[in-house]
Amino acid sequence: MNGEDLKARVFGKLEATHQAAPLLARLSTDEKNRALESMADALLRQQYAILAANQGDVEAMRDSGETGARLERLTLTLDRIQDMVSGLRQVVNLPDPIGEIMESFERGNGLQISKVRVPMGVIAVIYESRPNVTVDSAALALKTGNAVVLRGGKEAMASNLALVAALQEGLFNVGLPKEAISYVDEPSRESVDLILGADKLVDLAIPRGGAGLIAKVKEISRVPVIETGVGNCHVYVHEAANLDMATRIVLNAKTQRPSVCNAMETLLVDEAVLRNHPEWFTSLAEALLQRRVELRLDQQSFELAAEQPSAPSDLIRHATEADYESEFLSLILAVKAVRGLADALSHIAKYGTKHSEAIVTGDAKVAEEFLLAVDAAAVYHNASTRFTDGSEFGFGAEIGISTQKLHARGPMGLRELCSYKYIVRGEGQIRE
Amino acid sequence: MNGEDLKARVFGKLEATHQAAPLLARLSTDEKNRALESMADALLRQQYAILAANQGDVEAMRDSGETGARLERLTLTLDRIQDMVSGLRQVVNLPDPIGEIMESFERGNGLQISKVRVPMGVIAVIYESRPNVTVDSAALALKTGNAVVLRGGKEAMASNLALVAALQEGLFNVGLPKEAISYVDEPSRESVDLILGADKLVDLAIPRGGAGLIAKVKEISRVPVIETGVGNCHVYVHEAANLDMATRIVLNAKTQRPSVCNAMETLLVDEAVLRNHPEWFTSLAEALLQRRVELRLDQQSFELAAEQPSAPSDLIRHATEADYESEFLSLILAVKAVRGLADALSHIAKYGTKHSEAIVTGDAKVAEEFLLAVDAAAVYHNASTRFTDGSEFGFGAEIGISTQKLHARGPMGLRELCSYKYIVRGEGQIRE
Repeated sequence: MNGEDLKARVFGKLEATHQAAPLLARLSTDEKNRALESMADALLRQQYAILAANQGDVEAMRDSGETGARLERLTLTLDRIQDMVSGLRQVVNLPDPIGEIMESFERGNGLQISKVRVPMGVIAVIYESRPNVTVDSAALALKTGNAVVLRGGKEAMASNLALVAALQEGLFNVGLPKEAISYVDEPSRESVDLILGADKLVDLAIPRGGAGLIAKVKEISRVPVIETGVGNCHVYVHEAANLDMATRIVLNAKTQRPSVCNAMETLLVDEAVLRNHPEWFTSLAEALLQRRVELRLDQQSFELAAEQPSAPSDLIRHATEADYESEFLSLILAVKAVRGLADALSHIAKYGTKHSEAIVTGDAKVAEEFLLAVDAAAVYHNASTRFTDGSEFGFGAEIGISTQKLHARGPMGLRELCSYKYIVRGEGQIRE
Repeated sequence: MNGEDLKARVFGKLEATHQAAPLLARLSTDEKNRALESMADALLRQQYAILAANQGDVEAMRDSGETGARLERLTLTLDRIQDMVSGLRQVVNLPDPIGEIMESFERGNGLQISKVRVPMGVIAVIYESRPNVTVDSAALALKTGNAVVLRGGKEAMASNLALVAALQEGLFNVGLPKEAISYVDEPSRESVDLILGADKLVDLAIPRGGAGLIAKVKEISRVPVIETGVGNCHVYVHEAANLDMATRIVLNAKTQRPSVCNAMETLLVDEAVLRNHPEWFTSLAEALLQRRVELRLDQQSFELAAEQPSAPSDLIRHATEADYESEFLSLILAVKAVRGLADALSHIAKYGTKHSEAIVTGDAKVAEEFLLAVDAAAVYHNASTRFTDGSEFGFGAEIGISTQKLHARGPMGLRELCSYKYIVRGEGQIRE
C-alpha cells in the first residue's frame, strides 16, 4: 500500500472515532453500564472465535522462535477471557466521574462558575502484544465517555481484531456506534506516526509497554502524551529501621511480583546498619538467595553477603554503574550502602524514575524528611513499593501508572481519563 | 558557534536549573514571598538599566521596518516596569498552593494515603518579544516552587537579559540561587529545539505567543506541553434571546478588546431572529459599524446589513469559508445565520478552537443543552466570552489559557502550575 492510501485509511478511522466522541460524552451512567454489560456478553459469545484467532498469533510468534514472557503474555485461554469479562463487569460497578461538579463559585459580578468533569474526547492507546490491554482500555474509555483508538503490536493483530469485533458487537447490541472503539489494523510503524500526528482528532495518547515504546511515542507525538510505567524503585533501610519489618518489606518489594514496574530494583542500606547489624544483612541476603534473587552488590555489602557459607556463587556479583540504572523487572537486586539520609536521597534523585520510593525507619522526623524530599509519584514510609497500583489505592481499575508530572501522577483511574470544563451562567454580564 | 558548543551551553544551563529545582520546591511560603518582594525591589532599582537595554531592542526593531503592534508590545516605559513590580507584589498576596493536601484516605490494610500538591519542577516558557512575559512567568513559577527556564524572542533579548539580571539580583539578595530563573540567551532556533528535547531536565513547556509558535513547540517537544491561547470564539443569539442583552454581549465580546483570545470572532444568529426582528439585526450592525467593525456576512445577514442607508461599503462584505476559520484578533466579525441550536452546535464543533463559546437565550432548557454539548474550556449562558481570564475567574494571575484537555483547561493560575504526589504512611504493610 502506498503512503497516501495508508494515510487516508488511518485518518478515515480517526475521523469516524472523532465523530462518535460527542455521542459517547453524552451517555448516561446507565447507558454506559449497559454497553459494558453488552460488551462482556459479546466477549463470552465470541470466546471460541477469539481463541481461534489468538492461536494463529501464538503459532506465528512461536514459529519466529519466541518462547519467553512475550509468548506467555500473548496467549489467551478461556480463563483469561473470563478475566476480561470480569474486568468489564467490575468497571460497571465503579462510580461514573463524568458530570461531577469539581468546584463551584460565584463572582462579585454575579457570574456562577462551575468546574465540571467531562471526557477527554478521543484517547489513543498504543501498546504491544498483550491482548488484555485491548479490553481494559476499551472498558475504561467507555465508562468515562471517551471514544478510543487502539493500536496494538502486529504480533497480536488477529487476537485484537477478534476482541474488538466482539466489543463492537456489544456496542451495536445497545445501539451505539462501533466507531466508539476502533482498531487501527495497519501493521506498519507509519500508522502509529499518523495517529500521533493527528492532534486535531485525538486528545490524548497513552503508550502502554516497555521503555522503548514510550520513548518513541514521546518523540513523535504532537498529541499530548501521558508517560507511564518505567519504575527504577528503591527501598532505603535507615539506621533506625525495625529490621524485621525491613526484611519483610524488602522481600515483598523484590520478590512478590518482580516483573512489574512497582517492584524494587535497588536496596539502599545505611552503612550504620551493615556495621552494627551485619547478621541482619547476611540473613536478608540468604533469604533473597533462597528465592533465587541475583544480588549485585557494592563492596561493603558484597563482603557481608559473600561470608555466607551457602552463598551460590552464580547469584552474587559486584554491582556496576549500569546496575543502579537498570529496571531489571526480574529476580535481580542491586544493593548499595549509603551514609545516611542525604546520601540515600541523592542516589534516588540520580537513578530514580520518579515512580515509587520507600524508606523503612522508626524515626518519624527522618521519615517525614524523606517523604517531603523525594520527587516521585508515590513515596512510602514503612510499606512496600508494590502498593502503587490502581486497585491498591482504591481506584478500582487503572490504565497505567504515570511517571510524568503533567495531568496525572501515579495510578491512573477513571478520573485521570477525564478533563473538565468551566460552565458559566450569567444574566447579561459584560466585561467593563 | 558550532552545534556541540551550543548544545553544551544550553544543557549546562538546563542542568543548573534542574539542580536548583529541589531547593525551590522546599521553600516556605514566607521565603517565596520575600524572594518576590526582593525581585520587585531589584526591578525598581534597575529600571533605568532595563529601559536602556530595551531602547536598543526597540531601535533595532524599528530599523528593521516594524511599526505596528509588535513594536508596541516590545516597548518598555517606567509605567510598564511599575506594572511588572505591582504584578510581582500581587503574586505575594496569592495563596500558596504547594503542600496543600488535596485528598486523604485510609485503606483497609491501614495504609494512610495523602495526595499532596507539589511543584512541577522545571518549567520552560517559550515566547516571543513581549518582555512582560519574562517577569510574569518568573513570578508565577517562583510562587509555586518551580524553577523556570525562559527563552524569549531574539528581538527582545537585551530587554529580557536586563530583566532577568534584576530578577536574579533579587534572588541573590535573599540567598537563593540565580539558576532558579534562567534565561537561554541563544538567538538560534536550535536552542529552542534543545530545550524541548530535554525531557530529563524539563517537566513542562508552555509556549506563549501566536499560533505558529504553538504549533512549532507542539511539533518538536518531547517535554509535555500545554497548548495555550488560540480562540475562535462564537456568540450564538438564540431565537428566545433577550435582544437588548444580546446587543450588549455582542458589542462587548467583539469590541471591548478585540486583540485577545477570548474576544468573539463569529456571531451566529438564529434565522428566526433575522426573520422576526430584522430591525434588531440592522441596528446591531449599525452599532458595530459605528465602532469600525468590519462585517463579513453570509447572504441572509448581508441583505439586512446592506439595507442600512449609512452602511460604509468598505466595512461590509460577503463571508468566505476562511472567515469562519479565522481568529481575526481585530475589529472584524464574521456573521452566520443558523437554523436553531443543532445548526449552531455543529458550526461551533466544526470551526471552534475549544476556547470560549456563548449562547444568549431566555430558554433555560436550550441554554443547558448548549452548555452540556459544547466542547470548550469555558461555555457561557448570557455572558460575554471576554470573562475567560485568570483574574475574572478569581485566580489572581494566569500564565495563559489552555485550549487542550490534558492537565488544565481554560485560565491557568498557580494551581495549574503544580503537580501532586501520593504520600503513603504504613506500619510495615506488604502486598499479599
